[in-house]
Amino acid sequence: MAFTPLHDRVLVRRVESDEKTKGGLIIPDTAKEKPAEGEVVSVGAGTRDDDGDRIALDVKAGDRILFGKWSGTEITLDGEELLIMKESDILGIIS
Amino acid sequence: MAFTPLHDRVLVRRVESDEKTKGGLIIPDTAKEKPAEGEVVSVGAGTRDDDGDRIALDVKAGDRILFGKWSGTEITLDGEELLIMKESDILGIIS
Amino acid sequence: MAFTPLHDRVLVRRVESDEKTKGGLIIPDTAKEKPAEGEVVSVGAGTRDDDGDRIALDVKAGDRILFGKWSGTEITLDGEELLIMKESDILGIIS
Amino acid sequence: MAFTPLHDRVLVRRVESDEKTKGGLIIPDTAKEKPAEGEVVSVGAGTRDDDGDRIALDVKAGDRILFGKWSGTEITLDGEELLIMKESDILGIIS
Amino acid sequence: MAFTPLHDRVLVRRVESDEKTKGGLIIPDTAKEKPAEGEVVSVGAGTRDDDGDRIALDVKAGDRILFGKWSGTEITLDGEELLIMKESDILGIIS
Amino acid sequence: MAFTPLHDRVLVRRVESDEKTKGGLIIPDTAKEKPAEGEVVSVGAGTRDDDGDRIALDVKAGDRILFGKWSGTEITLDGEELLIMKESDILGIIS
Amino acid sequence: MAFTPLHDRVLVRRVESDEKTKGGLIIPDTAKEKPAEGEVVSVGAGTRDDDGDRIALDVKAGDRILFGKWSGTEITLDGEELLIMKESDILGIIS
Repeated sequence: MAFTPLHDRVLVRRVESDEKTKGGLIIPDTAKEKPAEGEVVSVGAGTRDDDGDRIALDVKAGDRILFGKWSGTEITLDGEELLIMKESDILGIIS
Repeated sequence: MAFTPLHDRVLVRRVESDEKTKGGLIIPDTAKEKPAEGEVVSVGAGTRDDDGDRIALDVKAGDRILFGKWSGTEITLDGEELLIMKESDILGIIS
Repeated sequence: MAFTPLHDRVLVRRVESDEKTKGGLIIPDTAKEKPAEGEVVSVGAGTRDDDGDRIALDVKAGDRILFGKWSGTEITLDGEELLIMKESDILGIIS
Repeated sequence: MAFTPLHDRVLVRRVESDEKTKGGLIIPDTAKEKPAEGEVVSVGAGTRDDDGDRIALDVKAGDRILFGKWSGTEITLDGEELLIMKESDILGIIS
Repeated sequence: MAFTPLHDRVLVRRVESDEKTKGGLIIPDTAKEKPAEGEVVSVGAGTRDDDGDRIALDVKAGDRILFGKWSGTEITLDGEELLIMKESDILGIIS
Repeated sequence: MAFTPLHDRVLVRRVESDEKTKGGLIIPDTAKEKPAEGEVVSVGAGTRDDDGDRIALDVKAGDRILFGKWSGTEITLDGEELLIMKESDILGIIS
Repeated sequence: MAFTPLHDRVLVRRVESDEKTKGGLIIPDTAKEKPAEGEVVSVGAGTRDDDGDRIALDVKAGDRILFGKWSGTEITLDGEELLIMKESDILGIIS
């Protein structure tokens, strides 16, 4: 069963970041607004600019991302918990 | 009796998702904002861009969709309860 | 005595929907936001896009419409109670 | 002494509608938001679109109009009480 | 000492309107929002449209204007009390 | 040590206006919103219009300006207290 | 491990400004809104203008910047505490 996000929405699988790995990305415990780590599952086709042309998203399926911890709407797809969020809720790509 | 939504509005038939089907889409019970599942009945002709050109909708009649649980206005058409919502209230298409 | 709405406004005659007719459109009693049924009497010439061109309305005189119950401003014209509302307050066209 | 409204503003003379005339326009007493009747005295040259071109107003001096009862700013010109309002406060033209 | 307003700002000298002159402009005492009378001293070069082109102001030095009573910021220039306001605070030109 | 403001920001040195100089600019004591006097130290390269073209600022280094008293963010650069504000916080240029 | 900010976001390393250095930049203790000093680590590819064209950022990796003290979201990357913020939160570049 596939899910295609609409417009500038992105389907994201939450990833538990390994806080013990040396040199890895560590989400601080005490920050006022803690970003979460995830993996992009699928992306929408993009919104349109003022001329009606489609603007493709900057993230693609497979990208490892950071996003605001409270971003998105939770859904369960094929028994797996996923998140639907807007691309603007994504802070950046880890590589 | 037919109903044609105006602009970027979409007529949606709510679908009770089968929460017991293995591998099916399951809407979680405890999520803070639970999306609902539906089927697109008919769509508007779209809004217009800054040049006045019509922007067609991305969903079409028959699409299986997820939408925010509290989205839309309820109407009863030919004895059936349906919802009128904006396309932007639709999270994505299930296929 | 005629009344020509300005811009994207529409003059609407409220129609009492027959809630008993089998197969007809029935406005539910208990919905949180109940749309009302009406008939378009006359329409404005439309607003203008960013280039100053006029954008014609999607509804025309005679259209049977659904609109948000609390939309519009009531006026009495030739002894008849009518409503002036914006086209964006109209949910769709019944045909 | 003349007064030229700026941009999309309109100078309006309030007209007491004759509520007894058969077939005339009657402003209902009990409506939640009662429009008032007036006559356009003079109009501004219009605002500008995104390209800087002037957009002429849709009303002209002499037009009989309906406007939101609380719209506009009152001034007294040559001993007469008038109203300055934006064209968007005008609901439509009576003819 | 000269003062050049920036963008769409206008430098205005407040004028006490002679409320006794027959046929003159009289600011009503009891209006909910009373406009004031003034004379334009100098104007800015205008803001820019979406293409970056300058849009000249509609008022010019010497124009007799009406403006919202609480509009603008008071300054004292060469011992004279003046007001700096945006052109959009000006209701119209008296001639 | 130099500081280059970003976009439409301006670096400003506050100037104590000499309230006793005859014919000079006097900031009134009792005005509801008192503008302050300053000198432009450096300016940003400007924001961009809808086509992505840069819009240069209207003020330049050395300009004597009036700005809203509570505008801007204070910084100390090379031991001197300065203000960073947006050009839109500047009311006009004194010359 | 690299982190690429999305759109108009910037990855920033906070720099403790040496408040004792003569002639250096000193962040005042008592200002109502105190900017902080930082160094740009990496930048996004920029947002898009109305035609869908990418607008490159004005800051680049290595730039020494001032930013609003409460701007941005804290992350820890390879054991180092960094900030992700929008370019518009940056006040200017120190050179």
